[in-house]
Amino acid sequence: MKKVYVIGTGMTKFGKLDQSGRELAIQAAKEAIQESGIASRDIESTYVSNAFGIGENQLHIGPIINSALGIPEVPSLSIESACSGGSAAFNQAYIALSSGYYKVALVVGYEKLSMNKTPENTRYFAMASDHWYEGINGVTFPGLYALMASAHMHLYGTTEEMLGSVSIKNHRNGTFNPKAHLQKAIDMETYLKSPIVASPLKLYDSCPFSDGASALVLANEDFNFEGQERIEVLSSARAGSRATIQDREELTGIPGAQIATQKALKAAGIELKDISFAEVHDCFTIAELMALEDIGFFRKGEAGKATLEGQTAFDGKIPINSSGGLKAKGHPISATGIAQIVEIHDQMLYKVDPHRQVSNPSIGLTHNVGATGGSVSINIFRRSR
Amino acid sequence: MKKVYVIGTGMTKFGKLDQSGRELAIQAAKEAIQESGIASRDIESTYVSNAFGIGENQLHIGPIINSALGIPEVPSLSIESACSGGSAAFNQAYIALSSGYYKVALVVGYEKLSMNKTPENTRYFAMASDHWYEGINGVTFPGLYALMASAHMHLYGTTEEMLGSVSIKNHRNGTFNPKAHLQKAIDMETYLKSPIVASPLKLYDSCPFSDGASALVLANEDFNFEGQERIEVLSSARAGSRATIQDREELTGIPGAQIATQKALKAAGIELKDISFAEVHDCFTIAELMALEDIGFFRKGEAGKATLEGQTAFDGKIPINSSGGLKAKGHPISATGIAQIVEIHDQMLYKVDPHRQVSNPSIGLTHNVGATGGSVSINIFRRSR
Repeated sequence: MKKVYVIGTGMTKFGKLDQSGRELAIQAAKEAIQESGIASRDIESTYVSNAFGIGENQLHIGPIINSALGIPEVPSLSIESACSGGSAAFNQAYIALSSGYYKVALVVGYEKLSMNKTPENTRYFAMASDHWYEGINGVTFPGLYALMASAHMHLYGTTEEMLGSVSIKNHRNGTFNPKAHLQKAIDMETYLKSPIVASPLKLYDSCPFSDGASALVLANEDFNFEGQERIEVLSSARAGSRATIQDREELTGIPGAQIATQKALKAAGIELKDISFAEVHDCFTIAELMALEDIGFFRKGEAGKATLEGQTAFDGKIPINSSGGLKAKGHPISATGIAQIVEIHDQMLYKVDPHRQVSNPSIGLTHNVGATGGSVSINIFRRSR
Repeated sequence: MKKVYVIGTGMTKFGKLDQSGRELAIQAAKEAIQESGIASRDIESTYVSNAFGIGENQLHIGPIINSALGIPEVPSLSIESACSGGSAAFNQAYIALSSGYYKVALVVGYEKLSMNKTPENTRYFAMASDHWYEGINGVTFPGLYALMASAHMHLYGTTEEMLGSVSIKNHRNGTFNPKAHLQKAIDMETYLKSPIVASPLKLYDSCPFSDGASALVLANEDFNFEGQERIEVLSSARAGSRATIQDREELTGIPGAQIATQKALKAAGIELKDISFAEVHDCFTIAELMALEDIGFFRKGEAGKATLEGQTAFDGKIPINSSGGLKAKGHPISATGIAQIVEIHDQMLYKVDPHRQVSNPSIGLTHNVGATGGSVSINIFRRSR
């Protein structure tokens, strides 16, 4: 296994943007290439993730991106894995680089959603659930995560305030991230008074639909580095769960997240206590609490209390979503998993606002969930040199 | 690099089918697993290709397939690369297996299109072209390939009869393939009288829209084989071309196909003359002629005459599309690249109807094109033992 590094990152602002999806994707890709200092022609393969290109009548985006970069001969493909598509693309590139099949790869995730209204986007998103058993019965993701939240509250005494503390923390971090979709702090009163989306989940439990793109240039140890600032990928693991939550033994956690975490820790050769900070998939506040328990940062049922106590703040015991998370930074589906890695990278290189800078960003983890956990990616990174 | 083998194949009939896309995908996957003799739990990763799941409100199909196979914990993802998505998924699995990252992988391609009318499907397909420069101007794939055909006829004297001879050959082969969409022989008169789709291309120059699924079980040399019949993957290469044909220096061939062929031959350590038969991407008859010239089986401008002479018949000098090709076997987009490999496998193991059995199927090649060549896959296989 060869060592793999993130040597360049790019990310557009997330939010309601004027540019098209292709413009966003190309912008992020160019930024990542520029930061990496490589020539475009060093890229041997381009991995794109995009879920709803159909909304812009544009599938098969890889050749368009490569043509814009002046490397039309380079192979490309698009990867979809619901909200974890970006991480799935990263994982494919990681496999090809760590095995020495390629030396340099470009990974790009993007999404353009703002031309649709919320009900339309909610319907789109629901296509990532099991249409026969969930979608057809009218259950969309707010409803599915609401069922999980209800179970968690019932079994472990998780409270509205605990869910609210996730949202307040992530909104607070977002105010120090100039690329975040929602750069607005909220307090508990605002949270508690926000309208119900799917009981018990409220508006401020839910991430927004965002436009945006993010990109990475990855290289393995055989690449001739010329002093690039870089971080090392210690491991990249994926796992699945039963497609429908009705078929699972428990509703309060995601089996695939538990499995992928163990695979990633083993492959990285580290223990959980070695992780100093993480970006986790908080599409809804309950998802962040489940993530913390699935990964094992807190015991089952204890993540809510820990969050309320500030243990997951940027200056807490285990900083979570210093970027603002999906909740505040935004969630342009396929860009999300890659943007998590951009945050790990920027934290490790001390490039973020001091008001959200983690104090010792030595080993970081990303946790990215597709749908209700049918697909989960866990990646672990280390500050290099 | 570890040796990689195709140890099991599955394929539904292609055509207008009653089953849903997910049923077709699961059926093909189960067939491939059964033929391979492995247990489902041996599978370490599932690579799915599907382009228009949105038509059935079902994206993120991997966890659904894995759940149906009893392996929900196994990671999966969906890959899209226009009409070459199946080959792109195969290529990703090949990289992971040849590098030893995984030992056993499942590859599934499927499509469900028959609920849509032809104009709707044509519009869908066109999303794989460059929407800003091609789609928005009303150019769909019949039109793009018609431009290429016109240029080929103009520059090389390719005739309607030469195009027709591709169609007649592939229709003839299809009559001996019980899984083919169109099992009907046609003659030159029928071909010449068929209605114009986009001049000079006629109905009988064009492949049909099909439902269908195909699947492969792949394993590398570290897998504990128990006498499975298998074929060896000698190489798997992908390359791209400029997204729009207007930006290319020539219209009568596909740069990515030429590049990918050279990469595949080099990686396989063989010469072109070692190839004994091939399945190529004949979405339109002109595409088969360009494929034969891009790969190098015939010099530029000579593939039409050679086809008319019968050199590419199943018993000719270089048998092409013994399955019936996309033209007669059908074209369920993401299933196509995998179905090409199923044909290579079945030919090498002498499992096809004697009326289309190639006489010495020792080394076979597949050529799968996405859109007008923005993505191209070339794979090379050898009969094992």
